[in-house]
Amino acid sequence: MADIKYEIKETMGILSESPKGWKKEVNLISWNDNAPKFDIRDWDPEHKKMGKGVTLTNEELKKLRDVLNEMEL
Amino acid sequence: MADIKYEIKETMGILSESPKGWKKEVNLISWNDNAPKFDIRDWDPEHKKMGKGVTLTNEELKKLRDVLNEMEL
Repeated sequence: MADIKYEIKETMGILSESPKGWKKEVNLISWNDNAPKFDIRDWDPEHKKMGKGVTLTNEELKKLRDVLNEMEL
Repeated sequence: MADIKYEIKETMGILSESPKGWKKEVNLISWNDNAPKFDIRDWDPEHKKMGKGVTLTNEELKKLRDVLNEMEL
């Protein structure tokens, strides 16, 4: 992971926090200086280590919102 | 990945499809015969190969829904 450059532009929300302080976050992230994308993944408290996650376009995030709104949660 | 057992119990929605037929899906998946969890990731057309993704609890999915509903998409 050391050679991936990333910059968290904005944090939209925190979905959960583990006992060790890792948080599942929804962020807007620029990877390798590219245009920022939405991203859902786990992060350590300093945002230095990350877990696996998904990157989503604006269009995919809209669809995701619609899918979640149709579910009974 | 060959030794991970998974069973897709339900597909809640498709967020996008690539030219090669991979789809970003929201599924309810049982991993290694454990209780099913929600999951967002890319899948090949046969659901045999998968990309990286996130697994979410019911509680995390609710929070995600609330976060997305507060955003202007």
